[in-house]
Amino acid sequence: MRIAQVSPLWESVPPQLYGGTERIVSYLTEELVRLGCDVTLFASGDSMTSARLEPICDRALRLNRGIFNRDAPLTMLMERALGQSGEFDIIHSHLDFMGFPLSRRNPTPTVATCHGRLDLPELQPVFREYVEMPIVSISDAQRKPVSWANWQATVYHGLPEGLYGFQPNPGKYLAFLGRIAPEKRPDHAIEIAKRVGIPLRIAAKVDPMDREYFYSEIEPLLSHPLVEYLGEITDAEKNEFLGQAMALICPYDWPEPFGLVLIEALACGTPVLAYRRGSIPEIIEDNVTGFVCEGIDSMATAVRRVSELDRRRCRQSFEQRFTVGRMARDYLRVYQQLLVNTREMDSRINGYSSWPSLTASA
Amino acid sequence: MRIAQVSPLWESVPPQLYGGTERIVSYLTEELVRLGCDVTLFASGDSMTSARLEPICDRALRLNRGIFNRDAPLTMLMERALGQSGEFDIIHSHLDFMGFPLSRRNPTPTVATCHGRLDLPELQPVFREYVEMPIVSISDAQRKPVSWANWQATVYHGLPEGLYGFQPNPGKYLAFLGRIAPEKRPDHAIEIAKRVGIPLRIAAKVDPMDREYFYSEIEPLLSHPLVEYLGEITDAEKNEFLGQAMALICPYDWPEPFGLVLIEALACGTPVLAYRRGSIPEIIEDNVTGFVCEGIDSMATAVRRVSELDRRRCRQSFEQRFTVGRMARDYLRVYQQLLVNTREMDSRINGYSSWPSLTASA
Repeated sequence: MRIAQVSPLWESVPPQLYGGTERIVSYLTEELVRLGCDVTLFASGDSMTSARLEPICDRALRLNRGIFNRDAPLTMLMERALGQSGEFDIIHSHLDFMGFPLSRRNPTPTVATCHGRLDLPELQPVFREYVEMPIVSISDAQRKPVSWANWQATVYHGLPEGLYGFQPNPGKYLAFLGRIAPEKRPDHAIEIAKRVGIPLRIAAKVDPMDREYFYSEIEPLLSHPLVEYLGEITDAEKNEFLGQAMALICPYDWPEPFGLVLIEALACGTPVLAYRRGSIPEIIEDNVTGFVCEGIDSMATAVRRVSELDRRRCRQSFEQRFTVGRMARDYLRVYQQLLVNTREMDSRINGYSSWPSLTASA
Repeated sequence: MRIAQVSPLWESVPPQLYGGTERIVSYLTEELVRLGCDVTLFASGDSMTSARLEPICDRALRLNRGIFNRDAPLTMLMERALGQSGEFDIIHSHLDFMGFPLSRRNPTPTVATCHGRLDLPELQPVFREYVEMPIVSISDAQRKPVSWANWQATVYHGLPEGLYGFQPNPGKYLAFLGRIAPEKRPDHAIEIAKRVGIPLRIAAKVDPMDREYFYSEIEPLLSHPLVEYLGEITDAEKNEFLGQAMALICPYDWPEPFGLVLIEALACGTPVLAYRRGSIPEIIEDNVTGFVCEGIDSMATAVRRVSELDRRRCRQSFEQRFTVGRMARDYLRVYQQLLVNTREMDSRINGYSSWPSLTASA
């Protein structure tokens, strides 16, 4: 099967630092190649892949100060990857709705994974306009605002099995990992640690737009003796940081479409405590791989019960539900179903004698 | 003639404050309606027009904090305005290259005015990819980096004739109008005023990205007794500010594709002094409506010769070359030529018997 994977150009594939979408594109691409598919990856030229790389710009856009107009390489990406027919059996776009205008006009079956949040009001008219476009959700919860769209499947993200090692013995601290941002409620994480008297280690980056929040709301809380702030950590450091934690705590107060960090913790055998928002109850098996909490009080209570959870069950849950092998098989099923549907559509259409002239004038 | 005008959504049409492209879209649209054309304007819903308004979003994006994902309304704009065929005889896009992917796939003749700079390296592959797209330059100089593109015409911007009133008598100050930005060289303007001992009045806004430059480089120079800084002024205040100046000085050090403020000054009868960059020598008739200068020394010398220039000739130049009437007639010629070319292309294509199946599989 000739498959095109179309990555955003914001980060390289895989990303040098942060970049959830590009990491998933990389894992999926490498696994599809391993399974024998003929894969072409459209991405920035500094990407590394065992697929055929179609480089659109020399370097990923986020760290490339030489690019002033970022719409230019994005336009090239869409024309080359989504605008051509005949080269691929399936085109898989990771550009959210951005690729819809060209995909709609391309006879090659195209599916888009929605990586972002869908609860913004301005997205409603776009998904209504392109209601026929085949799309994939990364959690069932993500679909809710546009439940009526042409959903093909929910495909949870997956990680390479060996990326994180299982740590059988729980450590003595709580971990908070990700971004310092108001909706991530790092203040709740700190408050919970203080209430239960357990050390909290925070590994998180601060984006430019969140700097004011960090300095005014969070930095004053970091001087507490139970709290240690590590700044941004590398992928290599994550294994130790997550594996040696007693639990990962995620007091996120927004409908996160999928929490990649949650399955990273599970891969290490580390249970996860998170608020009941968005995709959380789909990822955590409550009372088995963690606790789904209703708020700050409930999470503080739950932390005291972490020792009741079996770290082997966390790792098992990861191996059964969140590996790249499972993700790639799910996507292959989506591709195959789409090919079948397209062929059925074609043969039905060919029953109408008027169709050739219709397509000629379309 | 059924004409679609496609405006960016960044500002309303006309813009409430700054916004060169949207002002031109407004002037052109109103003049085409006045000339009897059937015009549809695709723009933000807070636009005001005598054409048929197709609102894409409630309010223009720049001042609309309720919109988080700005690509969503832009995608809707392009689908509705550039993606449909049959409704219009001509589609006129003001989205620079952004509309090329859909315009290429739309049989309705479409022309795009390039409003922005074309000298960025990342634009080269885009214009090469879409080399067949009919485009219009706003100055001959603007074309230089992509001189090989499918240029239809240069159409200089134009203003309504009555927008600015002629002021026969020169005032006693030099005017600097626009943005405080390094490439506009407000420091040169101040230095020139000091050298010749003539007051300088600066009416300019400071964009967020230029604030550091303003505070570190320009603000310390504003305390000089010859310099008066007015901040941002309204359109209504411009008439007096420009009309009562002895000259407008534009020591811009970048290839500005077209300087709208230059023709605003000429409309008032105020001569213009500017460096020889980009479109400048096309707008100023040297020694008649102003002086084209080689640098700071040459401009300081030229300021002393301003009284040699005839303010009536400045106004005449505006009336002959830079009114909205002339601009609209130029664009109508472009539209008509494009219709003729498209019809010729169609009839040539219909000579090939293989074409219908070609288009059917394209």
